[in-house]
Amino acid sequence: MSGEFSFIHWLRERTPDTPRVLVGPGDDAAVLAPTGRPQLVTVDMVMEGTDFHLAEVGARAAGRKAMAVNLSDMAAMAGVPTAAVVSVALPQNNGRALGEELDLGLREMADAFGVAIIGGDTNSWNGPLVISVTVLGEATERGPVLRSGAQVGDWILVTGPLGGSIRGRHLTFTPRVKEALHLHAAAELHALIDISDGLAADLNHIREESRCGAVLYAEAIPFSADGVALSRSSGKSALQHALGDGEDFELIAAVSPVDGERLIREQPVQGITLTKIGECVGTGLWLEQDGVRSKLEPAGWIHQL
Amino acid sequence: MSGEFSFIHWLRERTPDTPRVLVGPGDDAAVLAPTGRPQLVTVDMVMEGTDFHLAEVGARAAGRKAMAVNLSDMAAMAGVPTAAVVSVALPQNNGRALGEELDLGLREMADAFGVAIIGGDTNSWNGPLVISVTVLGEATERGPVLRSGAQVGDWILVTGPLGGSIRGRHLTFTPRVKEALHLHAAAELHALIDISDGLAADLNHIREESRCGAVLYAEAIPFSADGVALSRSSGKSALQHALGDGEDFELIAAVSPVDGERLIREQPVQGITLTKIGECVGTGLWLEQDGVRSKLEPAGWIHQL
Repeated sequence: MSGEFSFIHWLRERTPDTPRVLVGPGDDAAVLAPTGRPQLVTVDMVMEGTDFHLAEVGARAAGRKAMAVNLSDMAAMAGVPTAAVVSVALPQNNGRALGEELDLGLREMADAFGVAIIGGDTNSWNGPLVISVTVLGEATERGPVLRSGAQVGDWILVTGPLGGSIRGRHLTFTPRVKEALHLHAAAELHALIDISDGLAADLNHIREESRCGAVLYAEAIPFSADGVALSRSSGKSALQHALGDGEDFELIAAVSPVDGERLIREQPVQGITLTKIGECVGTGLWLEQDGVRSKLEPAGWIHQL
Repeated sequence: MSGEFSFIHWLRERTPDTPRVLVGPGDDAAVLAPTGRPQLVTVDMVMEGTDFHLAEVGARAAGRKAMAVNLSDMAAMAGVPTAAVVSVALPQNNGRALGEELDLGLREMADAFGVAIIGGDTNSWNGPLVISVTVLGEATERGPVLRSGAQVGDWILVTGPLGGSIRGRHLTFTPRVKEALHLHAAAELHALIDISDGLAADLNHIREESRCGAVLYAEAIPFSADGVALSRSSGKSALQHALGDGEDFELIAAVSPVDGERLIREQPVQGITLTKIGECVGTGLWLEQDGVRSKLEPAGWIHQL
């Protein structure tokens, strides 16, 4: 864990004093005080040209996204993110200015969720910008929520409208960390996941891990304005955008029908609207539209029977 | 934390059952049982063309190095590595075969130190191979050893010969994890670091963090056969290779003169020879050669006075 230039030194100077951080960036490893709770660990890498177009959006937006996608994974476990380490490969050309912008983006997102950036590794190379973020967190007293606990009969809820994130939300989204914690406090969540691959694909992850099936109700899925706008020129419907686009970073939750009914009625989580979009069934992945149930591919395609 | 193809699924199937790993790869975040000890976290990224030449050495050697450099950072804290998460960008061309080779290299190094690979993020792109590894660990009962505890009068010890790692050792080295733990048990280590940047640069890190000076004794520094061989054609002396080459991944330790004298006499750490190469002084970084003390640059250059 070392870096050729000041990126890591800025981190060290700016790392917020949290009681858990005993040693921050600048030593060979960071040191955290122990807590009595299960630890959560997640990692995601974002790459120029694949996850963002540097020339269009800048390094700040890239840094923000790199941190946010990891915080979204933490939300998907209903965990409390606490600390992060960051490794980067900076293009040699203009690397220093890029590093500064990147730092701003990483930090604004980390700060918004009380996450201390405790270590890093800064490299420069003759290649595109690559950022890898590892976020550490803790489970709450209710424990982490896995993908594997959904039961037949469960209601499937979603935290917001879906589709068309490529129009900008894939960079600007706010990870549902706080919403997940509120939801976890308000009900027993059987399963939880964030929508990165797409509604159909990520619901399929829950379904597979929980060894059950799932049906989505086409008429109930909330479409984002972005998906609707895209559908005017993309040759796909807003439904297809909602099912397949991905990077919405909303949450899918499976809850008992009793909890589901109550959550929909009471809407206990400020700032979002919980919507029932489906149910867990015995087997398979299905889409019900106009009263007809068709097989749904995890990629979001509907098999017309 | 998701991957397009089976890399993560192999990880999940192969992750050793350790009591600490409650949830491994396959969920949004891995879950570890809490321990009562301070946690250590370190991250390092290695990139094709910078840290290894893929066409020459293959992905297995690259994966091995990516894990080993992080384990070396854990050794540098006298920590016990326990778990790792890995993010990779695989070149699209032949990505699957590369992923398999990479997995072998990561795993052989992790397995050798009882480290469970508990999560990952696999990406493919039209770019070079990039591997980022985050290693988690624990401090022993004696606590982690930082860079900042060296005192004036301390002896400076090194765990092995230095220089010329580019001839192969930068890929094949064994991180000094076990040696660090033995050393930490055998004596009170004031400061510890692994040699990644180079003897002069890394000793300078200790010196700066400890707010003292340091002098190296040129005649005492053990030269590796690689550095001696390189010196025949490089235009540099074996001493210059030992001071500046880096990636030796031996450890530099600062200990009291009493402990230092005993460690050198008793050689309590199996498999390595501890050598006294210098002492901590009031200020500055120095090289003493033929009884003359010259200023030493962290890059390994000697100012002739």
